Amino acid sequence: MERAVRELWAESRDLLGLGSPSPDASAVPRADQPPSPLAFLRDHVSPGRPLIVSAAATRHWPASSLWPIASYLTDALRSTAVSLHLTPDGRADALAPHPGRPSSKCFASAHVRRVDFPAAIELIRGSDPAAGLVAYAQQQDDCLRGEYAAVAGDVDAHVPWASEALGCLPEAVNLWIGNAHSVTSFHKDHYDNIYAVVSGEKHFLLLPPTEHHRLYVRDYPAAHYVAEEDAGGKHQQLRLKLEMDEPERIVPWSSVDPCPGSPEEMAAQASAFPLYFDGPAPIRCTVRAGEMLYLPSMWFHHVSQSPGPNGLTIAVNYWYDMQFDIKYAYFNFLRSLEIGDCSSGKPDALEEGDLEEE
Amino acid sequence: MERAVRELWAESRDLLGLGSPSPDASAVPRADQPPSPLAFLRDHVSPGRPLIVSAAATRHWPASSLWPIASYLTDALRSTAVSLHLTPDGRADALAPHPGRPSSKCFASAHVRRVDFPAAIELIRGSDPAAGLVAYAQQQDDCLRGEYAAVAGDVDAHVPWASEALGCLPEAVNLWIGNAHSVTSFHKDHYDNIYAVVSGEKHFLLLPPTEHHRLYVRDYPAAHYVAEEDAGGKHQQLRLKLEMDEPERIVPWSSVDPCPGSPEEMAAQASAFPLYFDGPAPIRCTVRAGEMLYLPSMWFHHVSQSPGPNGLTIAVNYWYDMQFDIKYAYFNFLRSLEIGDCSSGKPDALEEGDLEEE
Repeated sequence: MERAVRELWAESRDLLGLGSPSPDASAVPRADQPPSPLAFLRDHVSPGRPLIVSAAATRHWPASSLWPIASYLTDALRSTAVSLHLTPDGRADALAPHPGRPSSKCFASAHVRRVDFPAAIELIRGSDPAAGLVAYAQQQDDCLRGEYAAVAGDVDAHVPWASEALGCLPEAVNLWIGNAHSVTSFHKDHYDNIYAVVSGEKHFLLLPPTEHHRLYVRDYPAAHYVAEEDAGGKHQQLRLKLEMDEPERIVPWSSVDPCPGSPEEMAAQASAFPLYFDGPAPIRCTVRAGEMLYLPSMWFHHVSQSPGPNGLTIAVNYWYDMQFDIKYAYFNFLRSLEIGDCSSGKPDALEEGDLEEE
Repeated sequence: MERAVRELWAESRDLLGLGSPSPDASAVPRADQPPSPLAFLRDHVSPGRPLIVSAAATRHWPASSLWPIASYLTDALRSTAVSLHLTPDGRADALAPHPGRPSSKCFASAHVRRVDFPAAIELIRGSDPAAGLVAYAQQQDDCLRGEYAAVAGDVDAHVPWASEALGCLPEAVNLWIGNAHSVTSFHKDHYDNIYAVVSGEKHFLLLPPTEHHRLYVRDYPAAHYVAEEDAGGKHQQLRLKLEMDEPERIVPWSSVDPCPGSPEEMAAQASAFPLYFDGPAPIRCTVRAGEMLYLPSMWFHHVSQSPGPNGLTIAVNYWYDMQFDIKYAYFNFLRSLEIGDCSSGKPDALEEGDLEEE
């Protein structure tokens, strides 16, 4: 079985034209101009093949010139309270040591706090794991059209070629503002995703859905950060502590950390998750300011980021409802099969954890 | 494993909207008008979902009014020699008793003979297994633009909405002329297929590619019919005899006959191929004169036919190159898995047998 699954990995990358790029080149196709709806549907959505569109895609957005200016957003959103996601280390919605049993892991969500936008930006800019506080504006509940409505008109309300191809408007449009310390762990979304970077760069590690078993998706008990003290309302003095959810809640999540912080952790990861570390390298791509990434539904992705000259990484993503079709049935079949000890063995469900990240 | 595969069958039919139709209705979606290229690609090609388009699709074809007239085609092709496929029983490219070992089966191809078109039509109309001779014009080598070029202008050179959606012109356009006695056994094609009926009706049994194992695709030695005598050049007096190919040639083909000729054969089939006979019923549809069927690539199909008032079933099909993508990789993975004794266990290959039929 493992041999058949490894052949599936190789064949699907090969057929998608994503096999064996040169080490310094990304295998993700790039387009100089936005594709026609028909070409996008035929060459990317239908086969499930990512695409990066050059900055031509967003050159007409007021956001492209306005948002990188430090004062523009803080002026426009001066009196707006936004949901800020706080963690000690920049790893929201990621595995962390279980507070009661440090030798095991839990799924840790951020402490979410409503903060006036100018203060949020200050916290994001000053984020530093060494100080025990990393802030990331990543509310993911259609927040650009909600909390950030005052600046939503600075970008297109939808991506015309994607909307026409997919036959619908986006289900959600989200704004993301962070700095280099926020990292998003491996996960997948049940959406077709158009991800536009406005400031800085986003670095993606991608695995096609056929490589499900390499992620070692397992059940973890959910936890969340709480603020221990908040003397004088100074957010900077927050101390975050992880508490288990009550009542217990289980989240299936990838066990793999592709970028462990030390050689010891790397050795532990490589030994625990050989299908990931011994298998084909993840597909890497960097999406630069102005560019758009089409990330097909059900693709696993891990995201890190570099800030622009304004100290921030700013991005907008459009989530479109995916088509649940024969590809999805095949995926569910694949994940129901066990390889060694790495199958969750359960049918795919719209788990909260699947949807909570970029 | 069998349980997981059965769940795949159910989920893929369900997601395609092809589950459990009422017994007297086909589950295949129908459209009153040809779809737009975008809707066709999104709702049918990408998910792999068949479609029947009403006679509006071909109303403008001169063929729609001309070809059903008995004398039109024989006049237009009076001096044209065409390739006629001859079998004793109407089952070309199908399993037959092995001539040397009647308890086992071989894959039998027709005796192909060049015949003047008017004589071919006479032979087709007079086809009768009781007389030991069934003729079917089904050359499948782009024959409408080859042997039948004189009448090719009576139909569209391609299907505009399909060509635009798929981004290419048809690789082959074929003409099919037979009567009720010609049957096409279960098989699949590595093409997206648009099948237009001009006279009579075609009756399809369909299974999605996810149901591969139900077809019991096994290796059979190839054979072909040869003419034993041809006294005085009267084709009607031909006696056909099956001879094994030399050197031996192996063709992987479905073992299942969904419409066995006797209760005894039915009992033997049901006992030998339980995944087919105990599983979900094949999806049935009838394509009437003027209508078009979109049959997605890799779908298994079995075809029988009823003649129009002219005594003939006439059809044209357009084969478009399929996209080899993640669906294809999943299919190859699925077929590499064994369930009981029904897997061929080999990677999918462009076997001659896969390509030879409607």
